[in-house]
Amino acid sequence: MKALRCQNQTVSVEDVPRPAAGSEALVRVILSGLCNTDLEIARGYAGFQGTLGHEFVGILEEVSEDHSSGLTSPDSTGPSLTVGLLTPGQRVVGEINAGCGHCDLCRSGDSRHCPNRTVLGIVGRDGAHAEFLRLPRVNLLPVPDEVSDEQAVFTEPLAAACGILERATITPDTKVAVIGDGKLGLLCAQVLGTTGAVVTLIGRHANKLQIAQKRNVETMLSDKTRQRQGEFDVVVEATGSAGGFDQALDLLRPRGVLVLKSTFHGGTEVDAARIVVNEISVVGSRCGRFAPALELLAARAVDVNSMISEEFKLADGVRAMARAADSGTMKILLRP
Amino acid sequence: MKALRCQNQTVSVEDVPRPAAGSEALVRVILSGLCNTDLEIARGYAGFQGTLGHEFVGILEEVSEDHSSGLTSPDSTGPSLTVGLLTPGQRVVGEINAGCGHCDLCRSGDSRHCPNRTVLGIVGRDGAHAEFLRLPRVNLLPVPDEVSDEQAVFTEPLAAACGILERATITPDTKVAVIGDGKLGLLCAQVLGTTGAVVTLIGRHANKLQIAQKRNVETMLSDKTRQRQGEFDVVVEATGSAGGFDQALDLLRPRGVLVLKSTFHGGTEVDAARIVVNEISVVGSRCGRFAPALELLAARAVDVNSMISEEFKLADGVRAMARAADSGTMKILLRP
Repeated sequence: MKALRCQNQTVSVEDVPRPAAGSEALVRVILSGLCNTDLEIARGYAGFQGTLGHEFVGILEEVSEDHSSGLTSPDSTGPSLTVGLLTPGQRVVGEINAGCGHCDLCRSGDSRHCPNRTVLGIVGRDGAHAEFLRLPRVNLLPVPDEVSDEQAVFTEPLAAACGILERATITPDTKVAVIGDGKLGLLCAQVLGTTGAVVTLIGRHANKLQIAQKRNVETMLSDKTRQRQGEFDVVVEATGSAGGFDQALDLLRPRGVLVLKSTFHGGTEVDAARIVVNEISVVGSRCGRFAPALELLAARAVDVNSMISEEFKLADGVRAMARAADSGTMKILLRP
Repeated sequence: MKALRCQNQTVSVEDVPRPAAGSEALVRVILSGLCNTDLEIARGYAGFQGTLGHEFVGILEEVSEDHSSGLTSPDSTGPSLTVGLLTPGQRVVGEINAGCGHCDLCRSGDSRHCPNRTVLGIVGRDGAHAEFLRLPRVNLLPVPDEVSDEQAVFTEPLAAACGILERATITPDTKVAVIGDGKLGLLCAQVLGTTGAVVTLIGRHANKLQIAQKRNVETMLSDKTRQRQGEFDVVVEATGSAGGFDQALDLLRPRGVLVLKSTFHGGTEVDAARIVVNEISVVGSRCGRFAPALELLAARAVDVNSMISEEFKLADGVRAMARAADSGTMKILLRP
């Protein structure tokens, strides 16, 4: 089968053996989405070698009869989505972290932080930019009929945006800013807006900010933020670059909360004294549960369709990666 | 009167006019303590010019009859310490932040974060390494008789250590590490130990670690921490240097809390992806309330006497600063 692979910071489409389900589930990929993390991995982030990709929607092709693995669903704290009823032929999305199933964290239901975890297309496990992928059966969730393939492929990044609500208290009275009008920032702003909080999305691209405006998110161009310094209770840093950190500190009130969302390769120079003197909380947020994300998609509570820039054939994956890296590009999809 | 002053990163003892109480209170200083922040200011931190010093015990010399200032005590959320009853001749310590009294933060009782605040010996207000100092009357608290001058001078840094408990949840089940066996680290470890939590103090000086050992704090030399990585729920960074940040991240479990205590001049290179991937909370903590600190001193719950290295005459302040900067020196006191 074809797969978009990264080896020694070089990306290429290769023919590789189709994986066997083994003790896991085999999924035939319908669509996969290019994430900035894919671009960061190609620059050396996480040191990953193998098939890229962690955003997908697919068809469950084959599932092991072995139900004795002892794994718990990474979504187990959420509303039950009848994981056990999955049968071949169903449309599925999948939580990307696969825990070892044996450590204290996995047994307490937090396999997302298992120190021995593999992560689809990021750590020790071939990813979704391929014709087929493998994941533990407990990682898969069925996609409601009312959610299209093009929407379902956003489940993983939307879950990551929902993860902010696990890490910061947001009420209708909370003044929230999101910095960065890329894909992640747009999803974060829309998710936070569903809480009833007043959300301001700050970015550099009027055309991208427009997507959020249609969802009752206030928007502001980055060079207009000087008057709003010290005004926000919570600022979400989703710029994907080191510069967003200082800008976020400028916008926060004393004892405010800075939510870090973006992962990128390299260091950030931080004036730690600002964090101490203003008693800021800097809160890292990575993944989130899939069930709330699927619910938001099914309810049409967020607009992801406007965020799709272009679809490529998987065979054109290298060109698709280059296109994704262009300034101004939104979501690029790959179809095997 | 004599005062230890900093101008353009040069420290000298000068003769300056004795301040008038004006609308505030005038305090005759009995003892003042040299803090690492004084050394950082002399290196350029905070850009302060004027009389250094923010740790003191003194005698209330004169207090304005004007009680109409509208200021609320920075300690107002704590147990009442009968601020109104202060009379000249009483021994006092003083909260170092003086709010404007008019902004939203001051009116909500949080003058410590007033954007227009002055801070004794740090921001826009001459400090405690002098024969006399001025502070708003509401900032002063009486010192219980059972607390000696040498103990009372530790109230401000001890309050700062107590401030951690406002910023992180510590229960008897919380595994806590404190990195840095300097004055601040020793106070933090002792305060955190009073919660019943198992506290491990990590440092480089066996003689300093001994002070904490006597207070039921576990200790560990810095080069022995490799086996304890990922083990702690809360790590307090009190090294006063940029290197402590990464070491703290190494020790924390996923979703652990890193409490930043030390302020220093210059930047820290942070791998922000580690904070995101492990979903760490980095929590700044600066000051704390004075009342709990005085209670700990009165109850002999912390040992500060062992932390005094030497006392100098204020006139020898420049030599005292040099001595405070020597590796291995603990608290240096100045007596006018």
